[in-house]
Amino acid sequence: MWVCGAVFRLRALAGPRKGLCPASGCRGPAAASYSASADPPRVRALVYGHHGDPAKVVELKNMELAAVGGSDVHVKMLAAPINPSDIKILVGGNYGLLPELPAVGGNEGVGQVIAVGSNVTGVKPGDWVIPANPGLGTWRTEAVFSEEALIEVPSDIPLQSAATLGVNPCTAYRMLMDFEQLQPGDSVIQNASNSGVGQAVIQIAAALGLKTINVVRDRPDIQKLTDRLKNLGAEHVVTEEGLRKPEMKNIFKAIPQPRLALNCVGGKSSTELLRQLAPGGTMVTYGGMAKQPIIASVSLIIFKDLKLRGFWLSQWKKDHSLDQFRELLLTLCDFIHRGQLTAPACSEVPLQDYQRALEASMKPFVSSKQILTM
Amino acid sequence: MWVCGAVFRLRALAGPRKGLCPASGCRGPAAASYSASADPPRVRALVYGHHGDPAKVVELKNMELAAVGGSDVHVKMLAAPINPSDIKILVGGNYGLLPELPAVGGNEGVGQVIAVGSNVTGVKPGDWVIPANPGLGTWRTEAVFSEEALIEVPSDIPLQSAATLGVNPCTAYRMLMDFEQLQPGDSVIQNASNSGVGQAVIQIAAALGLKTINVVRDRPDIQKLTDRLKNLGAEHVVTEEGLRKPEMKNIFKAIPQPRLALNCVGGKSSTELLRQLAPGGTMVTYGGMAKQPIIASVSLIIFKDLKLRGFWLSQWKKDHSLDQFRELLLTLCDFIHRGQLTAPACSEVPLQDYQRALEASMKPFVSSKQILTM
Repeated sequence: MWVCGAVFRLRALAGPRKGLCPASGCRGPAAASYSASADPPRVRALVYGHHGDPAKVVELKNMELAAVGGSDVHVKMLAAPINPSDIKILVGGNYGLLPELPAVGGNEGVGQVIAVGSNVTGVKPGDWVIPANPGLGTWRTEAVFSEEALIEVPSDIPLQSAATLGVNPCTAYRMLMDFEQLQPGDSVIQNASNSGVGQAVIQIAAALGLKTINVVRDRPDIQKLTDRLKNLGAEHVVTEEGLRKPEMKNIFKAIPQPRLALNCVGGKSSTELLRQLAPGGTMVTYGGMAKQPIIASVSLIIFKDLKLRGFWLSQWKKDHSLDQFRELLLTLCDFIHRGQLTAPACSEVPLQDYQRALEASMKPFVSSKQILTM
Repeated sequence: MWVCGAVFRLRALAGPRKGLCPASGCRGPAAASYSASADPPRVRALVYGHHGDPAKVVELKNMELAAVGGSDVHVKMLAAPINPSDIKILVGGNYGLLPELPAVGGNEGVGQVIAVGSNVTGVKPGDWVIPANPGLGTWRTEAVFSEEALIEVPSDIPLQSAATLGVNPCTAYRMLMDFEQLQPGDSVIQNASNSGVGQAVIQIAAALGLKTINVVRDRPDIQKLTDRLKNLGAEHVVTEEGLRKPEMKNIFKAIPQPRLALNCVGGKSSTELLRQLAPGGTMVTYGGMAKQPIIASVSLIIFKDLKLRGFWLSQWKKDHSLDQFRELLLTLCDFIHRGQLTAPACSEVPLQDYQRALEASMKPFVSSKQILTM
């Protein structure tokens, strides 16, 4: 299902004029809808009209900016990351939400409020805002959004932290809190530990006094990666191959077996995570990078009472109020203010160099997130 | 771990005299331990000294009956089934509990109390008793058990029901009650629907007003099996192949998608059960007949929030009091008294014909449970 807040209308200046809002009456975040004003301001946006190879289907287009209605907010985007889920949506993969096309890419990012409509009370010019939900289309210089599509964040946190706050750290925190009652000293195991979520898990877990066992794919610069993750607070860093070796047992002489496993890979990696879990423990799956199903031993599930769950932030947000989401963001900002949570390693790329950024974001073993700056 | 109540001592008359109780001080159910009396009564038991082909490793042996101590109960066994788990234990497979060897086979059955020790208050001569836990060794004519190893059941239910009450119907009832809050009209899907648990699920679910979708392996007499399961209360009976066909959707025009799936097979069958589940639903695994791991789609787990759990009655009993187990048995007896729960189709076989019974119990597509009578 495509949530209402994510439906938007856009009109490329050079393209045909089309009504693109499928839900009539839905006043979604009118990104750059047709405006009757004589000389509307022009903005640039990364638009795609069909699914496919991201570097080929995405185009930088000039668009008109919609008029600011009573409940609207005019936002100047500051920075917006390219996340793995953005790529998955661009290629039209098996993802929970797929937008109506044409669409502006990007689901995350931070912008600054330039102007607000007369009925807007939640934000004011100068405030920093992030999308309340995915599908906003953040890869653009400016936009007019409805107030309800946005959520304010403190403007005293680093720009990269704000631009990457709304998805990965939220996912990491909820997975650490909502499935097992963990106490300081307990351990957590995860794969894809170098991902945006993985790095947030390491840092938030460390701040909560939890020990993390972090599985990564082997690579030429493994020691460099190990050092970097340990510097973030990782207790142990092991490769997928190391995870299958008997020496894994040595880890659990010093720390308890994990009651929580976080799986973003699937396939064999998920089988191994399950094998490391303490009796009664839970594996939470939030991604499937290996493009293989989860393979789980029947006897472990029965005799060790292991639990398999899934986590999807969009579902969590549907099940919770906007105030609860706001509270979650403020909790994360507390970690940031205390220096316990930093943005993942980022490469800032100007919007017009989007092709370079898209290509870089799809390379294997890329250790830095591409962030488009406007 | 081998629970204390399951440790027993036995001495085959023809064999060497050995102390076989590994846990010294543990007064387990002294099945037929060495007795100092001049001419101890002789009993027959199906004993195995090592793991392997059941029909080869199991022998009918004469044994001495232990003296009845103050807390002991002398029981004449009436009937004891051969369950798939018994076979799994005999072959030494990947099972949660494996007994010390030599051991008397059989984990389930019903006996009648002949005499009790002076401290026994819970049962009296004439009462029917079943094992409180697996590992009792029920394939024998008589035994002396400690009172705590036994639990009384009403003697006004059919013998076959009593002999098969303590494991499969308990497993079926707990799985229906403990994972999803089901309401009359809700549906449940299961595979291995012709198993002992499967037949109990069909009947208990029907008694609770739940609709069952029952997956079975295709076979020459499929219509006969379908009729029999429908006669027990099955709403739908489909083959594993039928489960993968688009026509499955038609079922859900009349009844809701299941929120609970019960998996005793693993492999592809479990993948398909998951595909049929309603969003947020739970698949409970309690067996792995296909000897293949559970294969679960990452996207279903994330975007449909499916949950995978396991159930093992031994663990449930560890986590609950004997009174709670007694209450469970009485609940099941209420179903039996009301004619809503019958024993699975059974073939009664005299103890001395155990080889025929063991062989029959291992044949594929056997639709009747072998019950040894003493």
